[in-house]
Amino acid sequence: MNLSCILLDEPSSAFAGVFTNNRFCGAPILIGRRRIRAERVRAVLINNRVANVGAPGGVEDAEALCDALGALISEPGESIIPASTGIIGWKLPVREMRDALPQLVKGLHRDGALPLARSIMTTDSYPKIHMVEVGEGRILGVAKGAGMIEPHMGTMLVFIMTDIRMQREQLNRCLSGCVDKTFNRISVDGDQSTSDMALLICSAAKPQVAEEDFRAALQTVCAGLAEDVVRNGEGVGHVIKVDVAGAADEYLAAAAGKAVVNSPLVKTAVFGNDPNVGRIVSALGDFADTVGCTLDLNKLRVSLGGVEIFADGCFELDTEKEVRLNRYLEQCAIDPAARGFPAHDRQVVLEIDLGAGQGRAEVLGADLSYQYVKENADYRS
Amino acid sequence: MNLSCILLDEPSSAFAGVFTNNRFCGAPILIGRRRIRAERVRAVLINNRVANVGAPGGVEDAEALCDALGALISEPGESIIPASTGIIGWKLPVREMRDALPQLVKGLHRDGALPLARSIMTTDSYPKIHMVEVGEGRILGVAKGAGMIEPHMGTMLVFIMTDIRMQREQLNRCLSGCVDKTFNRISVDGDQSTSDMALLICSAAKPQVAEEDFRAALQTVCAGLAEDVVRNGEGVGHVIKVDVAGAADEYLAAAAGKAVVNSPLVKTAVFGNDPNVGRIVSALGDFADTVGCTLDLNKLRVSLGGVEIFADGCFELDTEKEVRLNRYLEQCAIDPAARGFPAHDRQVVLEIDLGAGQGRAEVLGADLSYQYVKENADYRS
Repeated sequence: MNLSCILLDEPSSAFAGVFTNNRFCGAPILIGRRRIRAERVRAVLINNRVANVGAPGGVEDAEALCDALGALISEPGESIIPASTGIIGWKLPVREMRDALPQLVKGLHRDGALPLARSIMTTDSYPKIHMVEVGEGRILGVAKGAGMIEPHMGTMLVFIMTDIRMQREQLNRCLSGCVDKTFNRISVDGDQSTSDMALLICSAAKPQVAEEDFRAALQTVCAGLAEDVVRNGEGVGHVIKVDVAGAADEYLAAAAGKAVVNSPLVKTAVFGNDPNVGRIVSALGDFADTVGCTLDLNKLRVSLGGVEIFADGCFELDTEKEVRLNRYLEQCAIDPAARGFPAHDRQVVLEIDLGAGQGRAEVLGADLSYQYVKENADYRS
Repeated sequence: MNLSCILLDEPSSAFAGVFTNNRFCGAPILIGRRRIRAERVRAVLINNRVANVGAPGGVEDAEALCDALGALISEPGESIIPASTGIIGWKLPVREMRDALPQLVKGLHRDGALPLARSIMTTDSYPKIHMVEVGEGRILGVAKGAGMIEPHMGTMLVFIMTDIRMQREQLNRCLSGCVDKTFNRISVDGDQSTSDMALLICSAAKPQVAEEDFRAALQTVCAGLAEDVVRNGEGVGHVIKVDVAGAADEYLAAAAGKAVVNSPLVKTAVFGNDPNVGRIVSALGDFADTVGCTLDLNKLRVSLGGVEIFADGCFELDTEKEVRLNRYLEQCAIDPAARGFPAHDRQVVLEIDLGAGQGRAEVLGADLSYQYVKENADYRS
């Protein structure tokens, strides 16, 4: 297990957080929801390996560890937000963790966030870190997350730090807006985690900037981290970008895109470089039934890699096009030799126009590979 | 491609059908929905390999084939219901199929339905056929289906024949009631097909029985076929039976069970014989968020293989129990040597009590294996 700590020089009253919507959520989420409304925050204490979800006495354990860290940094435990990721159902090894805290505090440094991004990894294949300068300061974020990824609000562990002086309500507005358009638009496996959170903490060392500038910079950081989470998703062989236009509203556009990237049949076809495009339209038809919206096949248009495959109510397929699409999918596959950091940038692009309105959204997903099954069948071995 | 035909000695006016709810559905579904309301039916014409979905002129193609068969059996094409399964988006090879019809009619026989059950198979590993006697007659059903399995109404191809004289409205009531409790309670991959249908056709040669007796017999046939579909699902290594009790109503019980058996993380854990039971409760928490129902963790009880793993708001886990559950999952795995016909009967039993009402439902699902990914990545190669 890795223990990590984000420590501010001074307690801050400017911070915001979003938490998983999963109704069965971890002790750190229960505590975090409370402490995010408190007056100040000084530190975040993070562990991987054990998520502290559904274990007897989980809240007490997390609070005891925050108190113990607080004693070392002369801060009440209530100013520390705990965060955990890993297996569900087991207790934290509280004594061992407490014993490790003095070493953790001694090791704190100002040499950048890469060690933090590394230390919170579980099945991640590379650290995820993004930084944007805005005004005289900057926004820096790190994230972990590779499986159990389908956020409905905040998911994974995401820690974003900024030195720009922003009001707390501005941070709240910007964070929830950005999470909704970034972390809430990705899916690796459609499973929403019990544990995950996105925190935004502000040291206020640098002058304020206009809220729209801050929000734009924050969105760039969140979008980069969200894309990294998919790119390094468990066993991901292809990243799939679905651009849905022509939906009744943005919410339905995002939901339709999610339905496509979450279809096991679409995911396995992409994994096999098989342009089995019928599965894409089938997933849309299934989605329309599930949410009870109309799907006008005569207005629907679908393109894969810029090649139109469905229009005017039917597919436009021939053998030559099949060969071309198969080659396109092969070229979009992640080169296993190029795994690691920095991340690759290949992706399968799927454009869908529902012809039913102005709603538009972009969703990022992934294929379904042997490797995903292997990692999740053997997660603990 | 296999062509099959179910031919009644005489046209029947007693028949019923349910069809996929997928809004993007195949030409045979569009035609079937119309013909199921017609006065009489004489035959069903079935092909595998090409599903005739979204292909230009698909409805005309299927109608032309029914007309051609009709000419051979002196019956209008409108009395024939077409059914297709296979790849989406491609045209039927109409000329070759028409040329094969005389041979098909010549080969019709009364030697039982096993050849039919075999001939409609695609990725199925064994034929699915169930028969129950009721009154002086019987109900016999065959089914195909191994992937793209999550029915919302009827799914797969299911053909049920009976010689019991029942009224058409009785057949309709019984079929939709039974489908709802059997085929609508199974899932292999959560994908609802574009093509599938369940037909019930009655020759009326034997005396009528009470509707409740007929329904009970029909339900036995449907339940047997539905279970077969899961047991022989693509790459299925474990069948998972989820018994959900204590839901607000039966619909929510079934939906909660589906959420558990459709979670990729639950499915992969079961595949790996890993009693990673946190994923089960996480899937329930995600479900409660998605449908907006409450989940009272203090009332929730979960057992795996008869061993209680969650109660009073937390998990009850220890290393000895882990070993026991791991062994249980291993013992529930399908013995690859025992694949084939007749089907095995092992299953992983998961009992969930939501403690929120009287709603109860049993859902059958499957694990997620390398083999599933392989079959669906290479479906056409």
